[in-house]
Amino acid sequence: MKTRTVPNRTYLTEKEMPEKWFNVRSAMKVKPEPMIHPGTKQPLGFKDIQPIFCDEVIRQELDNDTPYVDIPDEVLRYYRMFRPSPLCRAYELEAALDTPAKIYYKFEGNNTSGSHKLNSAAPQAYYAKKQGLKSITTETGAGQWGTALSMACAHFGLDLTVFMVKVSSEQKPYRKAVMETYGANVIASPSATTDIGKKLLADFPGTGGSLGCAISEAIEAAVKSGGSSRYTLGSVLNHVLLHQSVIGLESKAALEKLGEYPDIVIGCAGGGSNFGGIIAPFVKDKLDGKKVKLLAVEPANCPSLTKGKFEFDFGDTGKITPMMKMYTLGSEFIPPPDHAGGLRYHGMSPIISKLYEDKLIDAIAVPEQDVFKSARLFAKTETILPAPESAHAIHAAVLEAQNCKKTGEAKTIVFCLSGTGYFDLAAYVKNA
Amino acid sequence: MKTRTVPNRTYLTEKEMPEKWFNVRSAMKVKPEPMIHPGTKQPLGFKDIQPIFCDEVIRQELDNDTPYVDIPDEVLRYYRMFRPSPLCRAYELEAALDTPAKIYYKFEGNNTSGSHKLNSAAPQAYYAKKQGLKSITTETGAGQWGTALSMACAHFGLDLTVFMVKVSSEQKPYRKAVMETYGANVIASPSATTDIGKKLLADFPGTGGSLGCAISEAIEAAVKSGGSSRYTLGSVLNHVLLHQSVIGLESKAALEKLGEYPDIVIGCAGGGSNFGGIIAPFVKDKLDGKKVKLLAVEPANCPSLTKGKFEFDFGDTGKITPMMKMYTLGSEFIPPPDHAGGLRYHGMSPIISKLYEDKLIDAIAVPEQDVFKSARLFAKTETILPAPESAHAIHAAVLEAQNCKKTGEAKTIVFCLSGTGYFDLAAYVKNA
Repeated sequence: MKTRTVPNRTYLTEKEMPEKWFNVRSAMKVKPEPMIHPGTKQPLGFKDIQPIFCDEVIRQELDNDTPYVDIPDEVLRYYRMFRPSPLCRAYELEAALDTPAKIYYKFEGNNTSGSHKLNSAAPQAYYAKKQGLKSITTETGAGQWGTALSMACAHFGLDLTVFMVKVSSEQKPYRKAVMETYGANVIASPSATTDIGKKLLADFPGTGGSLGCAISEAIEAAVKSGGSSRYTLGSVLNHVLLHQSVIGLESKAALEKLGEYPDIVIGCAGGGSNFGGIIAPFVKDKLDGKKVKLLAVEPANCPSLTKGKFEFDFGDTGKITPMMKMYTLGSEFIPPPDHAGGLRYHGMSPIISKLYEDKLIDAIAVPEQDVFKSARLFAKTETILPAPESAHAIHAAVLEAQNCKKTGEAKTIVFCLSGTGYFDLAAYVKNA
Repeated sequence: MKTRTVPNRTYLTEKEMPEKWFNVRSAMKVKPEPMIHPGTKQPLGFKDIQPIFCDEVIRQELDNDTPYVDIPDEVLRYYRMFRPSPLCRAYELEAALDTPAKIYYKFEGNNTSGSHKLNSAAPQAYYAKKQGLKSITTETGAGQWGTALSMACAHFGLDLTVFMVKVSSEQKPYRKAVMETYGANVIASPSATTDIGKKLLADFPGTGGSLGCAISEAIEAAVKSGGSSRYTLGSVLNHVLLHQSVIGLESKAALEKLGEYPDIVIGCAGGGSNFGGIIAPFVKDKLDGKKVKLLAVEPANCPSLTKGKFEFDFGDTGKITPMMKMYTLGSEFIPPPDHAGGLRYHGMSPIISKLYEDKLIDAIAVPEQDVFKSARLFAKTETILPAPESAHAIHAAVLEAQNCKKTGEAKTIVFCLSGTGYFDLAAYVKNA
């Protein structure tokens, strides 16, 4: 068979893989506002956050200036078991759409966590271990972040306690089983292991829990560990976006190998971690004068960028976190039922919010039914069953490609396929 | 970070990918016996099987001589969406075992079907389409083969009817949902759509069905289609092993790039499709005088090679298929409950059986509890959650590596990681 100039799958070699993350804040003229204390409204410094997060992560969180941050050798070693992820040319999707556009996607779902979350789980577990901690805590709703962190903790030799929203742990026993296979201690939240959990159980007997409550329990468990534990979070924060920049750096390097530069880069956006990751190097290019459209895609049901306000708000429903300046629908906002669990967040990463405020990125909100239509088209043409979250990015790529068909432009479209939908089939059934 | 000489993941380029399958029978001095008619005991020819299978597949099934068979361009094009699969160096598993052995695994699970089954589903769908057929039929138990065939039929534009064992379709609604997402018509078996199904429903109201019954229904539906449909099978038969040779050919090419040749090649063996695939080119080498151990691993609960008899037997419990000369526990053998569904077959591929009879391959049977111990070790060290079937191969590799530790030999061990365990978590919970 004649080999096409651009293969279906482009893999970097280990030597070509990035060995540094890129800190997008270093390129921004105006930096995102720092987190503030809800009472004093004062910016939070290193010492304020030290009981919650591990030291290196806080340094990364607060560092707006260092452009490139070394990926530790131990993390690179771990990355090499599931990275590089392939940059895929969507020949079959292009043919189905009969579009002159060239569509590429960076596929981050080919690891057991099923998503890009492992990119940040690995360094967060590593830094905690390096600091001499015994354990870390986190919360999980849908379960992808909890799974990723379980995998990373198994590798780095760290105990992990995952507070899993009770209703989710009951509905998804197998998500719990994966985490336990990797050695995690999974606790249904609210639980009797924390004060806040006990209080909630007393006040609301039989409650199914919430992500806000699970966050509160995970933070309490870390803070009250006597210093042996810290809390970890899988999205929204600056250090998470730093780690996820590996997606964009690899994508850019692979595109360069193919002699390509994107006209449009697309990612779905809930907390902003995969979108922030894939656009990172392209934001710098854009600030350097390059023309490239950077498009965040959110669900019409939870449109924080396109319908929210840019203001200081809490990171959680329970209002126990610091406040962040971000696009938000209000910390009390409860989105209508929607299966893209990873996109059901009331706010948006402060970095992404600031980029949107400064008109460096675009955003659209798309309805669930349309998203699933594109998800099914993608599955049938490109073989991969996408996560409902990632399908938002697919749908936007389809819209852009259809537009190219109208205008006759052969644009180069790149999107992040952040995960697979193997645990989301209830959503496919509902939207059949 | 210093890059190791052997990377964690070795991917062939598209140009390096095999463009022909290898027919292992061409290298065998004594060929496997042909299928025979249960009544007449006469070998079955092309015309006898034509109502059941599509023409090209029958030609491949009966051809013992052609060494290399062109992979059609259309199939190569499809393969390139999920192949090459990576050849992985198990550095972390080696370290955990403190072994001088070098362990490699060929990872076939990184596609939405979750296993190597897609390698044969693609050509089977393609040949059916090329012949002008409207549809194909098949049966599925655990669901991996049905999923793979659904994916391939969506691509090649073919209707697919999957008879899914009723109890399995009720216990695994999401497996059904994946197949339906790809457009398959999934029917719980026994069903009222076939005569044999109607009879079974009348005789055994409320039955949960069986694989034997689902096979019968799928064959009946194909045979009674008036020529517009054919039946397909995902293991055991010669043409399936031919298609799966792509696993071994890619493995050998990747090992050559690394300057390696295996001392031991390992695969789990149920019907024999992934094992037959990975050993294909190495059987030829062995017949040409090369020293290499080829090891089939079966569950202690279903030990067809190690405890079965080499004789003519039916392929199914219902005794409606032709008879094949194979190692068999008897077509009425029902293995005790065991979660490695893909290995619960009473017989073994005639090719694999003949190779075992001729002492060209070795076989061991291993107990379920030990297999899950190795599965968990592998998941924690190498990040990938293995299918219980594939974990049999992992366990044998662990045993060989432990033996190397005792003897001090730095053997090169290669095994096929045929699939992932994302849909098998009940088994992990049971064997925790």
